[in-house]
Amino acid sequence: MEKIAVLGAGSWGTALAMVLNDNGHDVRLWTHIEAHANEINQTHRNPMYLKDVVIPEEIKAYFKLEEAIEDVSAILLVLPTEVIRLVCQQLREVLKHKVTIIHGTKGIEPETFKRVSEMIEEELPRELYDEIVILSGPSHAEEVSIGHPTTVTAASKSEKAAIHAQNLFMNERFRVYSGTDVIGVELGGALKNIIALGAGISDGLGYGDNAKAALVTRGLAEIARLGTAMGADPLTFIGLTGVGDLIVTSTSKHSRNWNAGNLLAQGYSLDEVLAKMNMVVEGVRTAKAAYHLGKEKNIEMPITAGIYKVLFENANAREIVDELMTRTKRNEIDEIHNMLKQYYQQN
Amino acid sequence: MEKIAVLGAGSWGTALAMVLNDNGHDVRLWTHIEAHANEINQTHRNPMYLKDVVIPEEIKAYFKLEEAIEDVSAILLVLPTEVIRLVCQQLREVLKHKVTIIHGTKGIEPETFKRVSEMIEEELPRELYDEIVILSGPSHAEEVSIGHPTTVTAASKSEKAAIHAQNLFMNERFRVYSGTDVIGVELGGALKNIIALGAGISDGLGYGDNAKAALVTRGLAEIARLGTAMGADPLTFIGLTGVGDLIVTSTSKHSRNWNAGNLLAQGYSLDEVLAKMNMVVEGVRTAKAAYHLGKEKNIEMPITAGIYKVLFENANAREIVDELMTRTKRNEIDEIHNMLKQYYQQN
Repeated sequence: MEKIAVLGAGSWGTALAMVLNDNGHDVRLWTHIEAHANEINQTHRNPMYLKDVVIPEEIKAYFKLEEAIEDVSAILLVLPTEVIRLVCQQLREVLKHKVTIIHGTKGIEPETFKRVSEMIEEELPRELYDEIVILSGPSHAEEVSIGHPTTVTAASKSEKAAIHAQNLFMNERFRVYSGTDVIGVELGGALKNIIALGAGISDGLGYGDNAKAALVTRGLAEIARLGTAMGADPLTFIGLTGVGDLIVTSTSKHSRNWNAGNLLAQGYSLDEVLAKMNMVVEGVRTAKAAYHLGKEKNIEMPITAGIYKVLFENANAREIVDELMTRTKRNEIDEIHNMLKQYYQQN
Repeated sequence: MEKIAVLGAGSWGTALAMVLNDNGHDVRLWTHIEAHANEINQTHRNPMYLKDVVIPEEIKAYFKLEEAIEDVSAILLVLPTEVIRLVCQQLREVLKHKVTIIHGTKGIEPETFKRVSEMIEEELPRELYDEIVILSGPSHAEEVSIGHPTTVTAASKSEKAAIHAQNLFMNERFRVYSGTDVIGVELGGALKNIIALGAGISDGLGYGDNAKAALVTRGLAEIARLGTAMGADPLTFIGLTGVGDLIVTSTSKHSRNWNAGNLLAQGYSLDEVLAKMNMVVEGVRTAKAAYHLGKEKNIEMPITAGIYKVLFENANAREIVDELMTRTKRNEIDEIHNMLKQYYQQN
C-alpha cells in the first residue's frame, strides 16, 4: 500500500484515483477549488465530471497542495495541458522528497510544441523525481469508473519507473502494459485528438461510417508521419496508444473532441463550442501545435490543416471534408512505406 | 461507357451496381434466383438486402448468366465465398471473350485456406481474363447506396487492370485508390471479420469502448502477423483495407459480423445466430480458416483462437473475453517490431 496524490479532479483524475483505491492505496485527490474538494468529501460525488458515480469514502479530496502530497510515493498529474506548468511551479515550492511522477495528460503546448513530460522536466527539479511516466491508452473515464475492462500503456525512459506505475494501477479490470517510447506514447495520445475532431465533424455533417473510416485511417498515417519526424517509434502509432486510442476517441459519443467536432459541423463557432462544453477540448490546442509543427518539419498533413482552417480560420466544414475526400492520391501506403523503411535502416 | 455484369444481387453487389450506373455504365445485375431478378426489375427495390433504396431503372436484373455477361468488358463477382467456385464454373461454360474480373468478396476458403482471387484463378481459364482485381475497403453498402462519401482500394498484380477498375468506379463520392498488394488487401478484408465478431462479442457482453479498442488493436496486430506470414505487405494492414475496414466493421451496427458476435454474446448458439440472420456471415468461416492457418504457421493468435472456441466449441464468451483481457504481456509492440524489421531487411 502506498500513499498517492492525484492532482486534478476531473473525470480522468477521479477515475484513476478510484483504480488506485481499488488496489488498496491511500489516495488523495487534489483540486485547486476549495468548494470542489468540499463537495467531493461531503457528497462522494463529482457530478460535473462523472455523474452517477459514487466515489469511495476512502478517497479524500484536498485543495491545499502541500497536504495532498505529504508523504506520497507517487504524484499523478491529470490536468489540462495549459495548467501543467503552473501546477508544477506550485509543486516545486512544497515538494520536499523524491517521488515517481506519472502523468495522464494528452496534449502539446501550442507555443513551444513541447510534450507534457518535457514541460514537467522543465518545471520540476530533477532531484524531486526518479523519472516521469506517461499513462495513456484507449480509456474513457466513465467506463473505468464503473469497472469496465480497460488496457493502457505506462511508458517511461526508466523501466523501473514504468514498472512502478504498472504495479500501482494493474488489476483484473485495468491492464497496464509497460514501454519505453515516451515520445510516441505522448504524441499518439495528443495528436489523435485532432483526428477525433475530424471524425466528429464528419459525423456532424451527416456522413457515414465509410467516410469516417477513411478519414481516421488517413489521419493515423498523418500523425504517424509527424510523430516519427519528432523521434517516435512509428509502430507505437499502431498500438494501444495510437490506433487503439484513436478508435475510441473517434467513434464514441463520450469523447469530448468528437463532440466538439460534431458541434463545429453544425455551424457553431469555436468560441460557441468551447462555451457549450464544460470540459477542456485538448484537440483544439493540439491542432494548432501540430499544424505549425507540420509546416516547420515540412510534413504533408492535409487533415490537420483542414481542421486547423475550420477551427481558426472559419472555413466551412463541409467544403473542407469534401475537399479531403476528393483529394487525388493514387497509392495510399507509399509514404508510410518510405517512413518505416527509413526507420528500420536507421534502427 | 462500358457494359458490366455484377454477379450477386446482395447489398454490396447492388450498391456497386448503383455506383457504376451513376458513372454512366450499362449495368446488369445477376442473381441465380429468377423471382429475385423479377422483383428487382418490377419494383426497382431489393428489400431483403437494401431496404428503403430505389434502384435506378437503367439497372436491369438477370437470372440467366449468359445473358448478363453478353458483350461485357468487366465482370464483378460480389458473392459469398462459398459460392465463388460454383459461379466461376458456370461462368467458364458461357464466357467466350476476355474481360476484366473484379471481385468484392471478403473471405478465405476454410478447407484450402485459399483467397478469393486464388479460387477464381483455379476455376477460370487464364485466357478469359487479363488479371483479377480486388475491390476492398471500409464500405457499408447501405451508405454507398445513398451516396455517402466512401474510399476503397482496387488492387491487382496488373497495374493496368487495377486502373481499369479504378476508372470504372471512381467518382466524387466513391474514391478508389489503386495498389498491387493483392494478398494484403484480400487478407485484410477477410481476416478483419474475425476481429469484428470479437468486437460484437465484447459489446454484447456489455463491455465498453475501452475493452473493444484493446481487442481491436491487438486483433489488428494478430491478423497482420498472419497476413505477413502469408506474403502480404504488413503495411497494408494499417491502410484503408486493414485498419480502415476494421474500424467500420467493429464499431457499426450495420456490420453483420459485429451483429453475429453480439448475438453469440447473448448466449445464442452459432446455429441460432446464423438462422436469425438472413445474410452470410463471412467471419465465421474465415475464423475457422485463420485458426488452422495460424496453427500451421505457428503464429500466436489468441483472439482468433478465442473466437474459434466460442463459435465451434461452445466456449463461454465471457470467460474467453475475460481471459483475453487479462493475458499478461509486458510489451505490446515487440513482436510487430520484429515482424516489420524482418520484412524491411528482406525487401
